[in-house]
Amino acid sequence: MAPAPQFGPIAVDAMGGDEGTAEVVRAVRLAFETLDNLEGIVLVGKERLLRRLIKVAGLEDEERISIYNATEVIGMDEKPIQSLKQKKDASMLKAIDLVREGRCKAVVSCGNSGSLVAAGTLRLRPMEGVERPAMAPIMPAKEKHFILLDAGANPVAKAEHLVHNAILGSHYCRIVLKIANPRIGLLSNGTEEGKGNALIVSTHELLKRISGFINYHGLIEGLQMFSNEVDVIVCDGFTGNVVLKACESLVSSMQDFLKKEIKKNPVRLAGALLSQGTYRKMKDQLNRDRYGGAPLLGLRGYILKAHGASNKFAIMNAIRVAQEVVRCNLNERAQKDIMKVNRILRATEIESLTVS
Amino acid sequence: MAPAPQFGPIAVDAMGGDEGTAEVVRAVRLAFETLDNLEGIVLVGKERLLRRLIKVAGLEDEERISIYNATEVIGMDEKPIQSLKQKKDASMLKAIDLVREGRCKAVVSCGNSGSLVAAGTLRLRPMEGVERPAMAPIMPAKEKHFILLDAGANPVAKAEHLVHNAILGSHYCRIVLKIANPRIGLLSNGTEEGKGNALIVSTHELLKRISGFINYHGLIEGLQMFSNEVDVIVCDGFTGNVVLKACESLVSSMQDFLKKEIKKNPVRLAGALLSQGTYRKMKDQLNRDRYGGAPLLGLRGYILKAHGASNKFAIMNAIRVAQEVVRCNLNERAQKDIMKVNRILRATEIESLTVS
Repeated sequence: MAPAPQFGPIAVDAMGGDEGTAEVVRAVRLAFETLDNLEGIVLVGKERLLRRLIKVAGLEDEERISIYNATEVIGMDEKPIQSLKQKKDASMLKAIDLVREGRCKAVVSCGNSGSLVAAGTLRLRPMEGVERPAMAPIMPAKEKHFILLDAGANPVAKAEHLVHNAILGSHYCRIVLKIANPRIGLLSNGTEEGKGNALIVSTHELLKRISGFINYHGLIEGLQMFSNEVDVIVCDGFTGNVVLKACESLVSSMQDFLKKEIKKNPVRLAGALLSQGTYRKMKDQLNRDRYGGAPLLGLRGYILKAHGASNKFAIMNAIRVAQEVVRCNLNERAQKDIMKVNRILRATEIESLTVS
Repeated sequence: MAPAPQFGPIAVDAMGGDEGTAEVVRAVRLAFETLDNLEGIVLVGKERLLRRLIKVAGLEDEERISIYNATEVIGMDEKPIQSLKQKKDASMLKAIDLVREGRCKAVVSCGNSGSLVAAGTLRLRPMEGVERPAMAPIMPAKEKHFILLDAGANPVAKAEHLVHNAILGSHYCRIVLKIANPRIGLLSNGTEEGKGNALIVSTHELLKRISGFINYHGLIEGLQMFSNEVDVIVCDGFTGNVVLKACESLVSSMQDFLKKEIKKNPVRLAGALLSQGTYRKMKDQLNRDRYGGAPLLGLRGYILKAHGASNKFAIMNAIRVAQEVVRCNLNERAQKDIMKVNRILRATEIESLTVS
């Protein structure tokens, strides 16, 4: 018998990723080989297929692995709410249910983001005092990484949501990037007081009021994004999604452009081979597998969204991050701050009503 | 005597750029050397200094150059509205006044963007049927350039403003990028119908209704930004500003990173030297001097905003673009479409009032 789990196992959605169930099982093997004290993994997917793949991976004697049967998969192009209604037996939903029922502590999934956000919000529910979850990817910058949130879970955000993002992002940053007192920046179209749209102006005022809970650096603009002036960048899910994807698109176009130019001429090609260490370093720095997934912060339980095209390294790293947030009790830590900050927000609201 | 100007001279703000008045005069010399049929340049700045610099540049016999005295300069960090009130004799304002009074057709300025937007809007006024101007930089992508608007002039936009941006951007694209039927995309957090915030949802509906006036491709997401799927990307000034600057920040961080890595090792350095043609091509592609400036579209007159750090090539190219939009009558062409489209927008509004 394996020792009784102290923190609880992690549910891994074995379907829905572009690389298929076999890659997920390989990731689980890698996780057992790499991570210390991994307590347990529940693989959620087609039972017979999983049994076979576990055997292929030589994991049939690993007592910490169990299987939870799910027969359906939500496709990448399916509409979130519709998919939730129509595919009751989807692996993603059954994995989330394991957390809802307290049988697992966290979910790792490479599936459809929209469905994951919708299912997470509806089935796990936001934590007390929080209305909407936020997707919090880790991004590479000049010297070190930073956290961007929200990257798309909540495209129509209120100031209060962004304040919660600042608190959640701050706690997550401490755990995952090991930065003791992370600097928080609010993304705007300029750094001067008064810059931004109505959402930014009111969020900025609220963030200044809760300086006891976060290390608020103030407004930042796009130009400061990749220069490591702050460790956590807070924005609404619309802006965050557009910026994140635009940057991905820029990097990929630049890479295509360089590849094409290098091939045009043998001298350039030789030069590129000699300096390939540089490119490799750059690729390492930009490698999104390193942190594996972005958590959906602010729910009653942990959901780690890994990229649809995740390979075993990315999935293993998402399992690692899931394990870390579970062990460090991210939600419990954040919950206390959220409750206190909400009291300040309520007081501010009453004050502004009295004044106006 | 020079022949009577057919299109009117261009006012060039000789102060306010980081590189100083001398660089602006050098740019003017370059413009006369390079551009065909340049009708006239009015240099706006300190008269004595300008006389001296014109002599140094060997332009004292150039009859197409005149000087308009201005004694003050608006600094890069000054607050827009305040600067307009306090510096009545600022070069930027006097240059704009030349256009307002019909003595010049366009302004080129490297000065403070916020002040330029405020002064342009207040002194030139938006064209008939338009409420707010839009800043429209030209951006490099995988194969060719595209136009992004609004990049920050109007951070709190309405759907109607974005519709006007689509029309203005479409006409500008025809002139400056020589694309006959430019494809227009609306920037959102996903491409499925219904994606986006309230502004995007209503703008998308309106853009579909005016398909006779623009080649509307539909919603695009950040991932498509640099892949040349569309020629004009429409967004509000908050999103546009954040995305534009984030991409600038990303490119500059990547360049810093590569430089540092290359210097770490002599083999890499040698390789980089051999493959430098590739880097040079990339630098060319990313070179913002190529189009020199971003116009502020939608005003009664043309304002070209060149980057604060513009060198003579960038300023010369901004003069070239100014000359092109003047000659092609950008505003007259766009004005007709704006009036027709506004009638469609009014009808849509009445319809929705009747339905609801």
